[in-house]
Amino acid sequence: MTSTLLSRVTSPARLKELHPDQLPALAAEIRDFLVDTVSATGGHLGPNLGVVELTIALHRVFDSPADRIVFDTGHQSYVHKVLTGRRFAFDTLRAAGGLSGYPMRVESPHDHVENSHASTSLSYSDGLDKALRLRGEPDRRVVSVIGDGALTGGMAWEAMNNLGGGGGRVIVVLNDNGRSYDPTVGGVAEHLAALRHGRHHGTNLFTTLGLDYVGPVDGHDIAAVEQACREAATRNRPAVVHCVTEKGRGYVPAENDRADHMHGVGPFDPATGRPPAGGSATWTDSFGAALVDIAEAHPEVVALTAAMSHPVGLGRFAERFPDRHFDVGIAEQHAVTSAAGLAMGGLHPVVCLYATFLNRAVDQVMMDVALHRLPVTFVLDRAGITGPDGASHHGMWDLALLGAVPGMRVAAPRDTVELAALLGEAVRTTDGPTALRFPKAKAGPAIAALNRMDGLDILYRSRSRPLDVLLVSTGVLAGPAIQAAESLSDNDIGVTVVDPRWLLPVNPTLVHLASRHRLVISVEDGVRTGGVGAALAQACTDAQVWTPVRSIGLPRSFLSHGDRSAILADHGLTAAAIADTTLTLQRGLAARQPTEREGTR
Amino acid sequence: MTSTLLSRVTSPARLKELHPDQLPALAAEIRDFLVDTVSATGGHLGPNLGVVELTIALHRVFDSPADRIVFDTGHQSYVHKVLTGRRFAFDTLRAAGGLSGYPMRVESPHDHVENSHASTSLSYSDGLDKALRLRGEPDRRVVSVIGDGALTGGMAWEAMNNLGGGGGRVIVVLNDNGRSYDPTVGGVAEHLAALRHGRHHGTNLFTTLGLDYVGPVDGHDIAAVEQACREAATRNRPAVVHCVTEKGRGYVPAENDRADHMHGVGPFDPATGRPPAGGSATWTDSFGAALVDIAEAHPEVVALTAAMSHPVGLGRFAERFPDRHFDVGIAEQHAVTSAAGLAMGGLHPVVCLYATFLNRAVDQVMMDVALHRLPVTFVLDRAGITGPDGASHHGMWDLALLGAVPGMRVAAPRDTVELAALLGEAVRTTDGPTALRFPKAKAGPAIAALNRMDGLDILYRSRSRPLDVLLVSTGVLAGPAIQAAESLSDNDIGVTVVDPRWLLPVNPTLVHLASRHRLVISVEDGVRTGGVGAALAQACTDAQVWTPVRSIGLPRSFLSHGDRSAILADHGLTAAAIADTTLTLQRGLAARQPTEREGTR
Repeated sequence: MTSTLLSRVTSPARLKELHPDQLPALAAEIRDFLVDTVSATGGHLGPNLGVVELTIALHRVFDSPADRIVFDTGHQSYVHKVLTGRRFAFDTLRAAGGLSGYPMRVESPHDHVENSHASTSLSYSDGLDKALRLRGEPDRRVVSVIGDGALTGGMAWEAMNNLGGGGGRVIVVLNDNGRSYDPTVGGVAEHLAALRHGRHHGTNLFTTLGLDYVGPVDGHDIAAVEQACREAATRNRPAVVHCVTEKGRGYVPAENDRADHMHGVGPFDPATGRPPAGGSATWTDSFGAALVDIAEAHPEVVALTAAMSHPVGLGRFAERFPDRHFDVGIAEQHAVTSAAGLAMGGLHPVVCLYATFLNRAVDQVMMDVALHRLPVTFVLDRAGITGPDGASHHGMWDLALLGAVPGMRVAAPRDTVELAALLGEAVRTTDGPTALRFPKAKAGPAIAALNRMDGLDILYRSRSRPLDVLLVSTGVLAGPAIQAAESLSDNDIGVTVVDPRWLLPVNPTLVHLASRHRLVISVEDGVRTGGVGAALAQACTDAQVWTPVRSIGLPRSFLSHGDRSAILADHGLTAAAIADTTLTLQRGLAARQPTEREGTR
Repeated sequence: MTSTLLSRVTSPARLKELHPDQLPALAAEIRDFLVDTVSATGGHLGPNLGVVELTIALHRVFDSPADRIVFDTGHQSYVHKVLTGRRFAFDTLRAAGGLSGYPMRVESPHDHVENSHASTSLSYSDGLDKALRLRGEPDRRVVSVIGDGALTGGMAWEAMNNLGGGGGRVIVVLNDNGRSYDPTVGGVAEHLAALRHGRHHGTNLFTTLGLDYVGPVDGHDIAAVEQACREAATRNRPAVVHCVTEKGRGYVPAENDRADHMHGVGPFDPATGRPPAGGSATWTDSFGAALVDIAEAHPEVVALTAAMSHPVGLGRFAERFPDRHFDVGIAEQHAVTSAAGLAMGGLHPVVCLYATFLNRAVDQVMMDVALHRLPVTFVLDRAGITGPDGASHHGMWDLALLGAVPGMRVAAPRDTVELAALLGEAVRTTDGPTALRFPKAKAGPAIAALNRMDGLDILYRSRSRPLDVLLVSTGVLAGPAIQAAESLSDNDIGVTVVDPRWLLPVNPTLVHLASRHRLVISVEDGVRTGGVGAALAQACTDAQVWTPVRSIGLPRSFLSHGDRSAILADHGLTAAAIADTTLTLQRGLAARQPTEREGTR
């Protein structure tokens, strides 16, 4: 592939030098580049193929970075990265130390917002716009690029209400492709469709809120988008530029992929769009199958998704039980409180979210579900370290947040047999909320327990050794914990490995077990602050059990993108590192306590 | 006052027996009753005076509790309580063990939602409506009563999108009085004003989302509201009934109160509407004054409120710096992310919220502010136990939630001198977010420190005693902690009282102090899970400091309404209880450790 134009466009200034007639060829080169790159690295393909022309137009009309272009959700910023001098870094896309899959301020002054959660851009833009006026840069413009899917999120509404009613002049570029992952749902989707097809004239949603409306324009017609943006820019008011685009545009396999237009993909064959053959089942697959089985026996079970039915494993459920499957849009708050209403009405809702997006609905989980002691089950996919999507996609806050919720019970299955069992227990719980968490990973082999004790599974016990160390493994870390225990046993350290199954609140038998060991170490793939170890330590102190409890887990910091296993290893969550940490602590304690036996109260 | 009609209306069934001509007299009796009652107990007056006719109409048209009437926010349910047989309990309104100021399921089958946070009712109703259809009660209706202020919250948008685009038939009764606490802001307020005054015809906000629209009707004309509700009910679709009401209607002092129409009040003289004379300054007053002083010197300081400018103490700031004061509506998510944008633009936003409403914006604090290390200050009023508003108003979750946020620094001033000092430190912080918390209370006298040590204040030290106990006091609990220490000293226990000032993350010097004592006890008015003691315990273990750390704080449960001091006492947060708990623990440890000194590593 010869990229004659692309090689010249190393900045927005160079882009502006091109003649309009050259732009379709540039767009084609960018598409080829994206397909080539993402087929090797994986990444967000469909969304970026859809915004090639739109992004070109924005960088020709506006003067980034002095004019601020804020991308909602951020995974559609690849074209922006190409046009702002980062083309040569794309071979490192989403790898540790490499180019982020989202805007990233250290990469470029053209980037502003690093968070990948949806529906935020209008709020940022409102603040930036106010700051420009207060700080004496009133001529600069703030441009927010937001998809129609992100409009279904409540934050976007809160911001539109402020944009429309305030004195600002943010330009909202609506990238309307009719989808988030899944087709956009609800009244707004139908309204946008009417606008798109010219069936609606005069007053529309945006104008009722006080924003000007320009469009609809063909988002793949660069001249048209440029003209619409220039028109919006001439107005001294907030305005929406309605651009109609196609997700996956210009790459036949993506255009033809009706599931999600190759929204986010791993490496694939650029000729066919197909991933390499093989691949075993994921946790998501296992959950999806288990939920269908349970729902057959439990007619009260309904499922909710926030615009991600397939990614969270609800595809089969939706086919089998279409009346019991609800996609509410990118609207986690509504998902949770609507689930509360369903539970009040006698059903058992299963709310399926990525763990990181639970953050969006903490108040609703707390006040709308838990305060009412409603039987709602939260299924948190992508819990722990996710990998290439970086800081705002790691699902590492759920245990700390749910740990504060009264009456909330949280389980982490160690294998898919346990996943089905714990899901069954969750769905049969009638007196309050439950949550299950599992990682973004292939499912491993089942790990049998030696015995179950008051709901806890003992997974390993050193033979003929003193009760030195209790390893509390959480979920999928059972494997490394057992391997660590085997290695410690070989070093004459007596180890018990227990899987609490239900992590929070702390099972009193776990406190009793702790009292019979000299040292407790929790092994968890969530933030240590407020995690399982912290809760167990408090429960021990409350019971006047003085065995030291140490957590091995994730630090209270934002972790960059990279390979999941490597990130876990960075934070001591491998068998070898668990064994090393344990050995060090054990020796420290032994040196300190020559005469006294800890914790035998 | 003779309540001849009111005494007959002991249920919705009895209400339906009245002739329409009798209803205005009933409404007048209800108003008199509300003024009489609330003048003695305190409570939400203005909102309830505004919904007298509307509530009468709803209970005549619909068949509660088979038809579900869900009140948004809930503080406007007094009339509903009167009409559902609870008139005689009003003398106990908001007192411990008495009638709740919000709907409460244990009180009546007519109540469904106990949470008092705004904008939730449409989501509950969506879920309830779906459940009715799935469970075979398709003829029953779900009616959501929501104010125009609550429409500015993003959840309401998420729900409207689902109501309008789904197959349900929720009836939304819009109680449009143009206000929340403060006048409703933004594009939606202007649009509703246009609808209210008949200046807008045809397509409106609701119809663009797929909801039918009936109105506007005079919300004080019972026959008109009844007719509009019946019309809405005949449609087999979701519909909005737009009722125009006046907050404080029918009680002259409330009608004339331009600040908030006597929204929420303490006891007052029913003849004048005025509270008893006197009353010292509150924490809120002190904060408001301190912020104005700081803002004079710091032109980069701007302030945001989510529809509660006066309640959070921003009244003077708004007058002095109108261009730097932003009321975003009941929109905590937008408040936080808009603040992120302001900070990106070089300003220092101070986001002023009730602590309980911070729950609404956990993701935004985490991802939009902290991930970007932006200098935003959160001021959390009503932190800890608030009192008569009950479970969903206590500000007891903030420390647990903020404790998980990377880079977040949280301070709790023990007096108003410290409040001003800590606010100054917060506003001068440029490398990340800060938060300050203080209670709903009168401000007490200043408490001087013996000395300051690496940012920690030593408030008390027993003379000529061993270093037995370290009491870590948080914020306003410094007083009781010092009194407890004095009493323990008299019992030959050596006590140090330290106020960390900045509670989270844990100051390393606090760990060092812990290492020099035999027992550490934190005293905190937040949930113990994930609180200051839990964080300190983890920091100690990480540093291999093995001094036991015990938390005295609030349990992980929802606490009912009642007197603030009494609730604190119930949970051991008085000087006497702190001393007792300390003594018991100290004796237990002493008995256990005859030879070894803890924590002297």
